[in-house]
Amino acid sequence: MSLSLNQWTTRQWSLPEAVDGCVRHGLEAIGLWREKVAETGLAESVKLVRAAGLRVSSLCRGGFLTTGDPTAYAQALEDNRRAIDEAAELEAGCLVLVVGGLPGVKPGEALPASGFTRDLAGARERVAEALSELAPYAGERGVKLALEPLHPIYCPDRAVLSTLGQALELSLPYPEEQVGVVVDTFHVWWDPRLFEDVARAGNRIASYQVCDYLHPLPEDILLGRGMMGDGVIDFRPITRAVQAAGYAGDVEVEIFNADIWAADADEVVATMKTRYEEVVLP
Amino acid sequence: MSLSLNQWTTRQWSLPEAVDGCVRHGLEAIGLWREKVAETGLAESVKLVRAAGLRVSSLCRGGFLTTGDPTAYAQALEDNRRAIDEAAELEAGCLVLVVGGLPGVKPGEALPASGFTRDLAGARERVAEALSELAPYAGERGVKLALEPLHPIYCPDRAVLSTLGQALELSLPYPEEQVGVVVDTFHVWWDPRLFEDVARAGNRIASYQVCDYLHPLPEDILLGRGMMGDGVIDFRPITRAVQAAGYAGDVEVEIFNADIWAADADEVVATMKTRYEEVVLP
Repeated sequence: MSLSLNQWTTRQWSLPEAVDGCVRHGLEAIGLWREKVAETGLAESVKLVRAAGLRVSSLCRGGFLTTGDPTAYAQALEDNRRAIDEAAELEAGCLVLVVGGLPGVKPGEALPASGFTRDLAGARERVAEALSELAPYAGERGVKLALEPLHPIYCPDRAVLSTLGQALELSLPYPEEQVGVVVDTFHVWWDPRLFEDVARAGNRIASYQVCDYLHPLPEDILLGRGMMGDGVIDFRPITRAVQAAGYAGDVEVEIFNADIWAADADEVVATMKTRYEEVVLP
Repeated sequence: MSLSLNQWTTRQWSLPEAVDGCVRHGLEAIGLWREKVAETGLAESVKLVRAAGLRVSSLCRGGFLTTGDPTAYAQALEDNRRAIDEAAELEAGCLVLVVGGLPGVKPGEALPASGFTRDLAGARERVAEALSELAPYAGERGVKLALEPLHPIYCPDRAVLSTLGQALELSLPYPEEQVGVVVDTFHVWWDPRLFEDVARAGNRIASYQVCDYLHPLPEDILLGRGMMGDGVIDFRPITRAVQAAGYAGDVEVEIFNADIWAADADEVVATMKTRYEEVVLP
């Protein structure tokens, strides 16, 4: 296992700065975000990570596939195909999919007065349908889709995929090279079936992401992700379980946190390296 | 199934006022809270609910059993035995147990600098141990303990019991009359295994509580419970599943919500009755 910087942790850095930061801090891998890749340009991003000798541990993110509107659904599929193309160019370890919430509920926004649906089961079915469209496309391009279950707190607006077990079930109809799952400690630490499902996931584990779960959560719950050691998660048993399941890939640190984004990014990476040794590695 | 007012929904009312409110609004049952019972006195509370001809659908609540400190643990067990005694006196349908969070993490407070533990598995084992102490005591007094899984957002500080499936597993070593589970829509609506676990729970369902899940949650996440219809939950399929599992008891409306507590309690009960018909009943 090797430490990777998910570039959203140092969102204050552009892609070239993050690549440079990884090299300076002796990291071998980086997790990229599409927004940042677009800012620098895909071809230039590919050139930079290759020149730096970095692996792209993941590309974040595709998904948001639950809409019931046919036009929006077609657009979402098309956008996901572009994300797959980008992941192929970047030779990313996987494309992370955040599948989307209840149709009509916009991430982080209040419920609209009308035009949203509470049909959770239907939204979940739509994800399975979309996957049947996208998995073969990804397979042809050698890209692995990584289904990311999100903490149930994000079920209304970001991901109707709420547990590792549920993600695993969704992945089973496809070859392991086409569809895997993400184990992100923030999202799954509470799950009573976690260790059983990590073992069951085995080679389906496409990405292991770590960050802590802060308590209490800040008002903007999206920013409740903290530096490892600052929250309530006991990382070592999870890391051991992921290893025992056969995962030998990169360990991405992905933190969304206003204080960390306001800090000196070099210090953030230095702290991340220390904490990784202190609390994440078994 | 019959509608019951959990008195925390109209927390602005004392116990005598809530009993009176139930009678005026034609309800047959009430869910009581220990704090309110203590305020009025146990004997007087018993007298009032009997005179009013009300069933006590549940007593809230026992629990908070995860501490690793022997003295505090003994005190917690003792307090739970008192709660069982009170439930027996009140002839409550069940005593709801909110099992407690990570040892040393106080509900709603920031993590202490030291003196808390991240040992989630250990905390869960302690709940199982405590249950083995309390279940026989409850059984002797004819009280059913109702294990309440709380939404994973409360795992750090209120309940390491996070899913219905997990609650069910904990209950299985005991007779159905001694240990059951609570299905509270707010806590379980997102669970991909909900319908399977409700069916599996069958006669173990000791209480069905309803309230909506607001989105976005308010800053104090404890108060994210809303009037049915004001949030994202599709109640009817859950009600149908609970009925199909064999539950024919009371349906308690339990809402923690600053606006509702500031409103006229009679209007709250009237709205609750309407919404129950409109969105909860199949």
